[in-house]
Amino acid sequence: MTAGVFYIGIDLGGTTFKGLAMTPDGQILGRMQRQTDAARTCEAVVRDMTQAVHRLAAQVASPERRLAAVGFGVPGIVDLPAGILRRAPNLRCCEGADLRALLQRYLTVPFTIENDANAAVLGEWWVGAARGLRHVVIVNLGTGVGGGVIIDGTILHGADGYAGELGHTVVEPHGPPCGCGSRGCLEQFASGTAIARMAQPHYGAITAAAVAAAARRGEPPALEVFRQVGHYLGIACANFANLFNPECLVIGGAVADAFDLFIETLQAALQARTFAEVYSRLHLTPAACGTDAGGLGAAYCAMRMVQATLAS
Amino acid sequence: MTAGVFYIGIDLGGTTFKGLAMTPDGQILGRMQRQTDAARTCEAVVRDMTQAVHRLAAQVASPERRLAAVGFGVPGIVDLPAGILRRAPNLRCCEGADLRALLQRYLTVPFTIENDANAAVLGEWWVGAARGLRHVVIVNLGTGVGGGVIIDGTILHGADGYAGELGHTVVEPHGPPCGCGSRGCLEQFASGTAIARMAQPHYGAITAAAVAAAARRGEPPALEVFRQVGHYLGIACANFANLFNPECLVIGGAVADAFDLFIETLQAALQARTFAEVYSRLHLTPAACGTDAGGLGAAYCAMRMVQATLAS
Repeated sequence: MTAGVFYIGIDLGGTTFKGLAMTPDGQILGRMQRQTDAARTCEAVVRDMTQAVHRLAAQVASPERRLAAVGFGVPGIVDLPAGILRRAPNLRCCEGADLRALLQRYLTVPFTIENDANAAVLGEWWVGAARGLRHVVIVNLGTGVGGGVIIDGTILHGADGYAGELGHTVVEPHGPPCGCGSRGCLEQFASGTAIARMAQPHYGAITAAAVAAAARRGEPPALEVFRQVGHYLGIACANFANLFNPECLVIGGAVADAFDLFIETLQAALQARTFAEVYSRLHLTPAACGTDAGGLGAAYCAMRMVQATLAS
Repeated sequence: MTAGVFYIGIDLGGTTFKGLAMTPDGQILGRMQRQTDAARTCEAVVRDMTQAVHRLAAQVASPERRLAAVGFGVPGIVDLPAGILRRAPNLRCCEGADLRALLQRYLTVPFTIENDANAAVLGEWWVGAARGLRHVVIVNLGTGVGGGVIIDGTILHGADGYAGELGHTVVEPHGPPCGCGSRGCLEQFASGTAIARMAQPHYGAITAAAVAAAARRGEPPALEVFRQVGHYLGIACANFANLFNPECLVIGGAVADAFDLFIETLQAALQARTFAEVYSRLHLTPAACGTDAGGLGAAYCAMRMVQATLAS
């Protein structure tokens, strides 16, 4: 059904966009990366992006292999039925844009649009740490905390595509105020930003990576920060485990590079607060796809769309 | 497709079992209730229950209307593929029993088995407060706190049927210890048991219903207990809202009779801690089916099974 084709997945970010050309069985055929010119109009961004798609497609295509579809992972809330980007704080020029209409102007192959966090979850599930599973929770610890949930092989969207905001669940009701308007969200304890904030009394202005380096040198205040990260991440993961009963919990994002620094307190809180039956089958693992996850998942969305069309 | 048939739903509890005979469009044709003789064997319980099914069916059946299938909502974790009741703290005699094999011995019509909490959620969704919606979270405040989640019209089971443990998500990490092994679970702030515990310093030994009566007389300590219930329930519901982006949040169970006593602090915490887009579309409502929900949902499961068989 899908022999002789490939898919391109684009991970559109506020500063760069990245593309991967993929076989149906998840092999990478080619890749590209360009600057996102976010200061221009959404149409200009779309034009740059589709030109890059055409160039990558031309490099990869052969008489035996043609481009079947393109998937876009976009940084914001997508109104999927309408194809409109509703909220895009990191790509303001595209906020409210009718992405589907713009893309149709420049692309002749079928395409699909998904939120970038969901695309990254699908990438990690298609070919990464959660490969082959049906029920997965993926927590991404970056500047903020995002992620998503796969239920019986389908990404959880909810009524309007806002579901899966793992980083904005409360783990400490009296905790620090969060940008979302709440207090004590997971994001305030497990993001890169939170790590820098928690280390600040000891180190002054510092990055999360520098706190990790200090912890690796054995410095007690830095080690304690990562113990706190693990503790609160463990509480949140226990909530996710009791709610979703997943086969696998994947921890991704830049902060997951410090997995060894927080895994002990994470595991302790998770085990203490999760039903034994749920905990005993739960596999806890760092992500495997790194920054490719978004492009991989976008390509997967394109493939799934084509396969659904063929099946119907 | 389903004209001329009816379904029976049985809600099996540790002290009683209740049955409802239902038309495919959700009208109640008949009902029954009997004691569960939990001191006997599981086979005896199954025999009593199926005899009652046959009696109810005989009352309701007519030349124009025959029994198409029976659904059972059972108090514990069901291994759905195997038909085995894995854990049943309120019906120990059936723990580990091969319910499917036992039921097959006494029933000739098709039947289906579901966890009772999930059945109650499906009942409330089929003909109750969440009727016609696709994405619903239902929190049941009884002796404990249970409930379940409907995602795109399907109950959330997770990998092993343990998903949807809404009452065992943490809302106060340093809160009172919980029977599940964790601390500060929602159940420790919003169950009938928790209400009695929180009122105890002021009233001594007291029931949740008596605390509600005291609150209705305007007694400040009782009013404060329900404010706490609402506050912590609001935090939990905010987490559910940001995770599931539901159209509707339903509050059921006996404690929901005091909805007016906790709705203000619930709504305040929910609004403060939920994304504006998620909150603005969220309908918050008390349950509508009362103690019928379990039987209704069990009948719905029977109907869905028959319809799936016909469609395949």
